[in-house]
Amino acid sequence: MDVVLIIIEIFGTVVFAISGALVAIEKEMDLFGVAILGLVTATGGGFLRDLILGTVPPRLFTDPVYALVALGTSLIMFIPAVRKIHGGAKKVRDVLLLVVDSLGLGTFAMVGMGFAVDAGFGNNPFLLIFVGVVTSVGGGVMRDVMAGNRPYVFVKHFYATAALIGCGVFVLLRMIAGDIVAMIVGAAVIFTLRILAALFHWKLPVARREES
Amino acid sequence: MDVVLIIIEIFGTVVFAISGALVAIEKEMDLFGVAILGLVTATGGGFLRDLILGTVPPRLFTDPVYALVALGTSLIMFIPAVRKIHGGAKKVRDVLLLVVDSLGLGTFAMVGMGFAVDAGFGNNPFLLIFVGVVTSVGGGVMRDVMAGNRPYVFVKHFYATAALIGCGVFVLLRMIAGDIVAMIVGAAVIFTLRILAALFHWKLPVARREES
Amino acid sequence: MDVVLIIIEIFGTVVFAISGALVAIEKEMDLFGVAILGLVTATGGGFLRDLILGTVPPRLFTDPVYALVALGTSLIMFIPAVRKIHGGAKKVRDVLLLVVDSLGLGTFAMVGMGFAVDAGFGNNPFLLIFVGVVTSVGGGVMRDVMAGNRPYVFVKHFYATAALIGCGVFVLLRMIAGDIVAMIVGAAVIFTLRILAALFHWKLPVARREES
Repeated sequence: MDVVLIIIEIFGTVVFAISGALVAIEKEMDLFGVAILGLVTATGGGFLRDLILGTVPPRLFTDPVYALVALGTSLIMFIPAVRKIHGGAKKVRDVLLLVVDSLGLGTFAMVGMGFAVDAGFGNNPFLLIFVGVVTSVGGGVMRDVMAGNRPYVFVKHFYATAALIGCGVFVLLRMIAGDIVAMIVGAAVIFTLRILAALFHWKLPVARREES
Repeated sequence: MDVVLIIIEIFGTVVFAISGALVAIEKEMDLFGVAILGLVTATGGGFLRDLILGTVPPRLFTDPVYALVALGTSLIMFIPAVRKIHGGAKKVRDVLLLVVDSLGLGTFAMVGMGFAVDAGFGNNPFLLIFVGVVTSVGGGVMRDVMAGNRPYVFVKHFYATAALIGCGVFVLLRMIAGDIVAMIVGAAVIFTLRILAALFHWKLPVARREES
Repeated sequence: MDVVLIIIEIFGTVVFAISGALVAIEKEMDLFGVAILGLVTATGGGFLRDLILGTVPPRLFTDPVYALVALGTSLIMFIPAVRKIHGGAKKVRDVLLLVVDSLGLGTFAMVGMGFAVDAGFGNNPFLLIFVGVVTSVGGGVMRDVMAGNRPYVFVKHFYATAALIGCGVFVLLRMIAGDIVAMIVGAAVIFTLRILAALFHWKLPVARREES
């Protein structure tokens, strides 16, 4: 189980590092700005998760693989030839950011719940779901606060909700189909919901102030 | 003792969720923006407190009541009919925000110190006061940073100071009158100081840069 | 060892409190804004370090010396006569901020690694370096996010990199020359690199978006 989680987590680290690097490049930051924002985005969620579950020092600090993967990915994004691929039109960058961010959201939600199960909290569905949502959303919130943007979680329709629904699917499905199947389906649900929401501009009611 | 603390904490959760929801509505966020900002404001202080005291996972993650109360309260604030009550004039919203935020400040300061006493730190008055101030101020700081506002703690006169004075009153009074009486008086002191400071525009010296 | 670390940490607390107070004065905050920003800057890195190393409650909460030194220093910075010294020209303030921030960066990086060694992680060079960088950079990030500035770590060339190089020097040198010598040299390397980078405007490549 642990090996599966680590493989998925490294995949999530790569895609979230890309999303952080893209935001930094959008803001015309220098090499180290890109590296740091990639690192924070890719590791922020897992850092929060480990603090919540009482895993100290957080994995991020004991095992270099996460930081090295996050930094390496960010630096690759910085290479001019790579940037050219997604530099053609703002639309291309936006689609790329949407896809990597959605992949990261789905995988980190599942990784968060998987580690919570490993830490012995498998019988508390509320904790599982909550830790999954925080793990998936945490890195992006740090990215946006540090970059001076309003956090995605407030701006993008269905962002946290997609994570919430997918985490609920995992909790229900793992009782029937086991953890691995539940993780795959849960991540797919999150990814699909988030992409559909963006494609079809799903909107939620806005809290316009009512003038009486 | 524990039951008393939980009841007070739920009251604080309700009022801080209202304050978070009001800020989100002011910013014309959508349904989930309102829910998330209400949740973060209502639970952020307790989350920090539990990390500081070594209570992992933080209560927020093990017991659903805090998240459910915070989300429920935020969603009620979102109902148009409810918003109409406080939507008439900016002045009404401002007064409402002042009152709920002051109530939350007082109750969370006391809850923070109460849990610190429960965790065995009753003989360290410095830790009690500091944890009380952080618990009471933490949720509001997260609310303001995530919403892109300058934290209240810098803007409103006597915000953290009111919390500090009330926490000092608790620490002194509990030696004579017991924890319960000290909590009631301490919370009342914080609420009163904060309202008086707003009413009479108590001002502190501002650090204008001195030109030599 | 512990006594040496505490002495260095108090020195770092003083210089980082000055840097926080200077930013608050620049923003024309009131007395308590200056005190709080000084406190957060001076203690934020150590707070993160203790959470990471599993030292709960963090030293900051159990030992009043850090908070009192940070608050006292901030209040001294607020005295008009003191402000006059650095109020003459923007250039004077900028140089002062650069020097105190660089001193804090160097000392906190070493203190972070020193406490990590004390906590039994001396045989994990990656963890040592990472904790050192986070301890040195953490308080400044909190200062800038709370003050509504873009974090220094993105803006100033060689900020985190200087910390990284100095931490690497410590890890290599302590095997030959012992912890104390390694800390002195490591801190000096960080301070020197940071000042040189500012003096000679060392620049890193900027991620201008490539138009294809």
